[in-house]
Amino acid sequence: MTYISELKKLLPEEQMTTNQTMREQHSRDESYHEPSLPDVVVFPKTTAEVSKVVAFANEHQIPVVPFGLGTSLEGHIIPYHGGISLDMSLMNRVLEIRERDFLVKVEPGITRTQLNKELKKYGLFFSVDPGADATLGGMAATNASGTTSVKYGIMRDQVRDLEVVLASGEVIHTGGLSAKSSSGYHLNGLIVGSEGTLGVITELTLKVYGIPESIMAARATFPDIQAAVDAVTGILSSGISIARIELVDDRSIQQVNTYNQLNYVEKPTLFLEFHGNEAGLAQDVEFTKEIVSDFGCNDIQFELDNKARAELWEVRHNLAYAFIHGFAGKKLMVTDVSVPLTELAGAIIDARKAIETEKMDGAIVGHVGDGNYHALLMIDMKNKEEVEKAKRVNEHIVNYALARGGTCTGEHGVGVGKAMYQPLEHGAAYTVMQSIKQTLDPHHILNPGKIFMKKDQ
Amino acid sequence: MTYISELKKLLPEEQMTTNQTMREQHSRDESYHEPSLPDVVVFPKTTAEVSKVVAFANEHQIPVVPFGLGTSLEGHIIPYHGGISLDMSLMNRVLEIRERDFLVKVEPGITRTQLNKELKKYGLFFSVDPGADATLGGMAATNASGTTSVKYGIMRDQVRDLEVVLASGEVIHTGGLSAKSSSGYHLNGLIVGSEGTLGVITELTLKVYGIPESIMAARATFPDIQAAVDAVTGILSSGISIARIELVDDRSIQQVNTYNQLNYVEKPTLFLEFHGNEAGLAQDVEFTKEIVSDFGCNDIQFELDNKARAELWEVRHNLAYAFIHGFAGKKLMVTDVSVPLTELAGAIIDARKAIETEKMDGAIVGHVGDGNYHALLMIDMKNKEEVEKAKRVNEHIVNYALARGGTCTGEHGVGVGKAMYQPLEHGAAYTVMQSIKQTLDPHHILNPGKIFMKKDQ
Repeated sequence: MTYISELKKLLPEEQMTTNQTMREQHSRDESYHEPSLPDVVVFPKTTAEVSKVVAFANEHQIPVVPFGLGTSLEGHIIPYHGGISLDMSLMNRVLEIRERDFLVKVEPGITRTQLNKELKKYGLFFSVDPGADATLGGMAATNASGTTSVKYGIMRDQVRDLEVVLASGEVIHTGGLSAKSSSGYHLNGLIVGSEGTLGVITELTLKVYGIPESIMAARATFPDIQAAVDAVTGILSSGISIARIELVDDRSIQQVNTYNQLNYVEKPTLFLEFHGNEAGLAQDVEFTKEIVSDFGCNDIQFELDNKARAELWEVRHNLAYAFIHGFAGKKLMVTDVSVPLTELAGAIIDARKAIETEKMDGAIVGHVGDGNYHALLMIDMKNKEEVEKAKRVNEHIVNYALARGGTCTGEHGVGVGKAMYQPLEHGAAYTVMQSIKQTLDPHHILNPGKIFMKKDQ
Repeated sequence: MTYISELKKLLPEEQMTTNQTMREQHSRDESYHEPSLPDVVVFPKTTAEVSKVVAFANEHQIPVVPFGLGTSLEGHIIPYHGGISLDMSLMNRVLEIRERDFLVKVEPGITRTQLNKELKKYGLFFSVDPGADATLGGMAATNASGTTSVKYGIMRDQVRDLEVVLASGEVIHTGGLSAKSSSGYHLNGLIVGSEGTLGVITELTLKVYGIPESIMAARATFPDIQAAVDAVTGILSSGISIARIELVDDRSIQQVNTYNQLNYVEKPTLFLEFHGNEAGLAQDVEFTKEIVSDFGCNDIQFELDNKARAELWEVRHNLAYAFIHGFAGKKLMVTDVSVPLTELAGAIIDARKAIETEKMDGAIVGHVGDGNYHALLMIDMKNKEEVEKAKRVNEHIVNYALARGGTCTGEHGVGVGKAMYQPLEHGAAYTVMQSIKQTLDPHHILNPGKIFMKKDQ
């Protein structure tokens, strides 16, 4: 690659490597998608350096793929067209905590756990919690969410301002510091979820929250999926101050029991969390007991102390790892559709059938307050038939969701894995997206082949 | 206008008029901005009709200005370049209520009061409540908010999907029915707040909420503005389940007392509302009393029954009208900046000084949970000096906010009144907005001269 010697003039030598191991580390994410090597890995330390590298790449029409920690699940950070992997891990500082404004300004390479450790000192927390300890830049790029969005919203809801390096190398700010604005087009929202295809995020100003006075968690088991989902609708209608409401199916509970040496009842289970004041929670708990019992739950356990609560959520967060560790050598495919709440039970039941029809093993978990669920499928990538089976299940699940007003991805993003469904999901709006991409990245250097299939760019 | 005879072939005769009175009704909004006549007013009944009219306008390069009820405050719907005023009032149906999905699908001409009347039958409500009984289409176009955004969010947060007619006449959908999505670019967010400059909204799918179990309202008076704002920060930090927190200054209370024949204490006052369950609210009330008393409030009144609570909020909502009716013949100028919470007290105190320096009469109210406040200035439009004074006050307030990370408009939108501040507020991002406008509306037929100054388009 002749351009690399030119590139070396832009940054200190130690911030750039063509080492094979490093390139391999930047060739894959946590998913089943095929790896592909970048030509070079670059570690910028400042926005100015990002700008220099991107402007250079634009001039020479070299692909640039921003990289956080590589925890994406749809191949977002895999450089299928070679070029530069732009590793943001050296830009990982907390720049400012504006405690009384409930704001924090960070660099994109910081992870959510690192951030929350800092915030805790101020009695604050950042709400979005995907399964992985992802970087905030990556979370913004994919519009990540997790278990708390039913109360606090998704990643896009937390972003007040982004500093973004455009394809030209120009640096813009997409928002400001005030809690709301009706000024100009919503560029915050446009960049969040654009997966590095419109610009590189170099700084984020995010909304944070006061740690609630009281938190209580619970686990409730149900005779079947339909009953569990109906209970969710009941809880959401009731005005109960619910902060998390997660469905874990019986197959998942089996895996959890094995991996964590637990004895949870192997039935469809809701993991719940309530945030509020003490008196309010006490009333919410009583009300929740009534509602779940109306839907056939005769086993609801409340976790009162912090430790038990933390353990409960660790079990939920480590569910994917319980599968990954249980199936050495296999790769994880996670489906990620989201549907209207009234379609959720039907969708999950249909997904279970699709998995059984293909004679596969798979579990289902869901952020059911949002109508978002995942089927976890472990695949032997060398077994072509198994790969094809899993792809058919994924496609079946996506088509079911799209036919009912849902989306092919609730929180993982499009990457390469969902690019093929974009025209069907968005119809004529897809061409609007293409025209925005064409306007802001005319040479298609920014993460090419993601969101849009290469041929559609 | 030679094109009108051509246009008449597209729609039934009764859906189009060049009547002088009708044109005048569509030449002005509720603000001080100069009126300007459209050539013709068109009343479409279907998306197909909107599409036909817009495609025709695009072909002949005729301006199209979407019109809801004309309640905008920055001249959004004034056709400064003539052309077609597209009055959406005949498209005002509720198309679908998906009770258990917490969704409603409406046409853009329905007002928030009409919508809430329908929703009430299902125990649901729509949360966004600007001062005027605006249309939902207009509220989405300006990204309106009101008193409830501290809990439920702004207009953009409620939008799941929009049907939009583009400049070409093509019809797109910007979202879907699921509660969250990471699929493709966030066109929902881009169209909300685009003020008719990127497309015409013909259908909205919106999030709605269950009416809370318990609601309580309160009025608390403070020795000064600083104390009142500090109390707001205290309340927001505490995790109290606050749904509305509005500041009304002493001058506003005077006007309210006159207009409504009330005897409210003429001091800076917070109007509050709490949503939750009974036990939780009881605890919140106690906690609120403690907090406000820490900040010098020795007079807090709780309104327990629905009637008293409705009256309290009617007083707040009718505040602008209390001024309009109190100053016959004058026009209202409302400033609308939003700043980080820690800058709010300083901003309001500075605004009061600016008003006094210009020897004007003006009141200040604020959605203080969001850092958003309005100075209400009554102007005699025939008195050039008074107009200039008011403009200077507005400009002073905007510059103060922008210098502190704030925005020139928290909820009223840009229209023509804030277009001049866009380059300063957005910097290099302004050219990104221009390029999106250019891409989606190459002939600049859609509400020309709004958001962007005509020369910048």
